[in-house]
Amino acid sequence: MSLDSDHRRILGRRGVLAASALPVLASPLAGASIALAQPGDPLPSWRDGPRKRAMLDFVAAVTTAGSPDFVPASARIATFDNDGTLWVEQPAYTQLIFILDRIRALAPQNPAWQQDALFRAAIAGDLHGAAAQGTDGLLRLAGAAQAGTAPELFQRLAAEWLATARDRRWNRPYTSLIYQPMLELLAFLRANGFATFIVSGGGVEFVRAFSQEAYGIPPHQVIGSSFALKPGEQDGRITLTREPVVDFIDDGPGKPIGIARHIGQRPIAAFGNSDGDWHMLRYTTEGPGRRLGMIVRHDDPDREYAYDRDSHVGRLARAMDEAPQRGWHLVSMRDDWARIFA
Amino acid sequence: MSLDSDHRRILGRRGVLAASALPVLASPLAGASIALAQPGDPLPSWRDGPRKRAMLDFVAAVTTAGSPDFVPASARIATFDNDGTLWVEQPAYTQLIFILDRIRALAPQNPAWQQDALFRAAIAGDLHGAAAQGTDGLLRLAGAAQAGTAPELFQRLAAEWLATARDRRWNRPYTSLIYQPMLELLAFLRANGFATFIVSGGGVEFVRAFSQEAYGIPPHQVIGSSFALKPGEQDGRITLTREPVVDFIDDGPGKPIGIARHIGQRPIAAFGNSDGDWHMLRYTTEGPGRRLGMIVRHDDPDREYAYDRDSHVGRLARAMDEAPQRGWHLVSMRDDWARIFA
Repeated sequence: MSLDSDHRRILGRRGVLAASALPVLASPLAGASIALAQPGDPLPSWRDGPRKRAMLDFVAAVTTAGSPDFVPASARIATFDNDGTLWVEQPAYTQLIFILDRIRALAPQNPAWQQDALFRAAIAGDLHGAAAQGTDGLLRLAGAAQAGTAPELFQRLAAEWLATARDRRWNRPYTSLIYQPMLELLAFLRANGFATFIVSGGGVEFVRAFSQEAYGIPPHQVIGSSFALKPGEQDGRITLTREPVVDFIDDGPGKPIGIARHIGQRPIAAFGNSDGDWHMLRYTTEGPGRRLGMIVRHDDPDREYAYDRDSHVGRLARAMDEAPQRGWHLVSMRDDWARIFA
Repeated sequence: MSLDSDHRRILGRRGVLAASALPVLASPLAGASIALAQPGDPLPSWRDGPRKRAMLDFVAAVTTAGSPDFVPASARIATFDNDGTLWVEQPAYTQLIFILDRIRALAPQNPAWQQDALFRAAIAGDLHGAAAQGTDGLLRLAGAAQAGTAPELFQRLAAEWLATARDRRWNRPYTSLIYQPMLELLAFLRANGFATFIVSGGGVEFVRAFSQEAYGIPPHQVIGSSFALKPGEQDGRITLTREPVVDFIDDGPGKPIGIARHIGQRPIAAFGNSDGDWHMLRYTTEGPGRRLGMIVRHDDPDREYAYDRDSHVGRLARAMDEAPQRGWHLVSMRDDWARIFA
């Protein structure tokens, strides 16, 4: 099927639904789509408008028994990118800042690092220098900073770092720089029978270190990039050690693979903010039946950041350009969000 | 720490608990450990005895606020092997029978298979001939029978086969040959805040084809062996195709890796039936705090099967021999189960 017929199919279906959804509403959510900004509004930090209405209409349609779009609870799967979708990713991914802090802490035991320009930049806290060699350089730094530990120990190290580290702009813990409107959306979906998953390009254990507390998402509902785990034995106990060997990159084309491997069901809703989410958004919205794809646009330099196609972090071009034809909703942080942080 | 001190530690802790657990019970489960075989018994198909008591005591201890063994609900993770632990695995793994049926169905389109002794055995339905080349041979058959499909299509093929295929001994669908006592245990654990996972050496998509309906375990809580997934594009849609290349073997030492990768938390309870579960049982019971490890022994030739150290399917030797010193409970199907199937 061509993109053009996809376009007609999606728009056609949405047109039909816009006209027919309200009369057939019969669920406990029946009033939701007209209860904007009123007491009981499940999304109070979302301003009234097409994006808020799209979410409320989608949830009403898939949860209303008898609706042509009804989806049983067991198939209500929603996936969320993390960096830039659930929390701040500028001026650099939080995990990169963690890696640089770890490299600096480990540097005295690793004098050879001083001979390497990449590691010198990392030790100096020079984000641009650390990112200058691209993904390969970042993976070298990540391997040096993060490998050699058991997953359980690594999660504890990450949690300890998150408990004390502060973002420089706001002087607040990184876990306080999560988006209140997205927290409300996660809770709203779960209250309607959805299982919510994080599908992040970041390291799976790093995200698991805070996913339950920050988002209410348990570790087993976090999918991410990973190093290989090497089994061993120490003091009569089985050990697992993270090796500096990439096992899986959960970004771009890796996201549908991670979803199929880990969830085993195609999501019916997906939320991202960059071209790294293009494949996940396509995989989600190309499935049969009613689907929802949304992209968070960072267009609010006063309250957060403004960036898209020219950014080295969270680049958003193709997914934004194709959003209209694919039926994806572009969320404006500036216009759609009454509040940014919790 | 040596196995001997492990032994003392586990036995010592269990001795203390056996003496102290009852007085501190204060949860809704307080009566459970003395309510054997009475109305409201959560495990009616389990006969009274040390195994039933061990399960009831364990659940009471980890769910009782104020108990020294209390575990918050978010850390109540229980993992179950599938073949031989939740359903029948004799005379051959059900998935192998599925593979042979698929090979037979695909044989007319693959005339070259007739030149290969392994495939001739498979086409003839000769289980021993198909198993004669060991794991390598089985993986070749599995690749030929199962690869080249999308995960979603493969799950549908497996579900369709399961809906019509019959076990020869009982002339019943394989999904009716699941163990009623284990179903009760799964439900009992979930009612007490546990998340229940399958950790199977079988193919992840095969188990996902029936896990929700048979066990109440959603696809995303199934961990299994897998083929590589190859991304592609067809008719303007993203595709994923199962390749005949092994991606992960979730058996033996692979089980702790699969658990760490997928769940991200160490289980506090694990249930298996063969030496393929030895690593999972160790990984689970070597963690700190109260733990439960159980092994289902197939010792009931009249109602099911009797096999252990000499069986080519579900071999049980090392895990059985080490069970006493490791504090693992050996469940006798003959003595502990009042009923085998649902």
